[in-house]
Amino acid sequence: MQNPEHTVATERIFRGRIVGLRVDTVQLLSGRVSQREIVEHSGSVAVVPLDDHHNILMVRQYRKPVEQELLEVPAGLLEPGEEPEAAARRELQEETGYTAQRIEQLVQFFTSPGFCDEEMHTFLAMDLVAGRPNPDEDEQIELVPVPLADVPEMIRRGEIRDGRSIAALLFAVQMDISNDPAVL
Amino acid sequence: MQNPEHTVATERIFRGRIVGLRVDTVQLLSGRVSQREIVEHSGSVAVVPLDDHHNILMVRQYRKPVEQELLEVPAGLLEPGEEPEAAARRELQEETGYTAQRIEQLVQFFTSPGFCDEEMHTFLAMDLVAGRPNPDEDEQIELVPVPLADVPEMIRRGEIRDGRSIAALLFAVQMDISNDPAVL
Repeated sequence: MQNPEHTVATERIFRGRIVGLRVDTVQLLSGRVSQREIVEHSGSVAVVPLDDHHNILMVRQYRKPVEQELLEVPAGLLEPGEEPEAAARRELQEETGYTAQRIEQLVQFFTSPGFCDEEMHTFLAMDLVAGRPNPDEDEQIELVPVPLADVPEMIRRGEIRDGRSIAALLFAVQMDISNDPAVL
Repeated sequence: MQNPEHTVATERIFRGRIVGLRVDTVQLLSGRVSQREIVEHSGSVAVVPLDDHHNILMVRQYRKPVEQELLEVPAGLLEPGEEPEAAARRELQEETGYTAQRIEQLVQFFTSPGFCDEEMHTFLAMDLVAGRPNPDEDEQIELVPVPLADVPEMIRRGEIRDGRSIAALLFAVQMDISNDPAVL
């Protein structure tokens, strides 16, 4: 297939710790030339930790970009060369202290593909064993267990406002994980 | 409440057509100083258009940041001063040609709040009336009706990989829109 957006020039704007930014000049199949602002991201993972009492172990933390605390599932960046499942186990342990004796893939998606290449891998973590959290130095994270059965209504009421958490949680609910996680 | 991340300096990096980028230096409650890379976005809307045959009218388009075609629900940017519902109606018409005689709020979320302030408003559009699409000059959009009942399995198989579409669609499925949209 012919590339529908052939890159004719790239202007590098920024390379940071979390994101990069470039502006690509592209030629469309019509011949028209356009520009694409592209936020570069190394990818991320999120974990839906389901405990033996059918609670999801969520975390509450302040998010500077949106200037408010959000209730989310544990999540974080993929480190260079790290496998998504290993990153998911690491983030779960760092943010909640729990380790998972069983972990299954949920769903994989781009968070906002119109301008950003971030891909997120999500996992279901089960058979959890408590331990001591180990957050990043500049993370302040509060553990908030939420009954799985309450999740849809909490989303409806706007108590869970992180789109990545909503996608992963509703996927898990849809798969009916509390009754038969084997369907995954 | 004391601000958990007090901004002590802002460095403006970029202001584009779709995104801006700044780096904030913040002081945490511990006294520690850290930096936050923040992608600025004006907000966006997505529409789940449900036709009278229980199909969702999805769109397929090439997404340069991820270098592939994605199947998504119609979506786009909020224009300055525009109400989210008006933007949803406009994007639906531009991308599919359809106008909605009935539109309801679904769910509202941040797409990736760790580094970006983009907030997305999603809507359910019903009682659709066909018309002529009117896409942006540099958009190539193909209309793809998808049976609502197939959506969860398509997400599971990785055929729908846009996280915003996944969140909006699974929220709609969860609300059982095909049987009783009045629950919204």
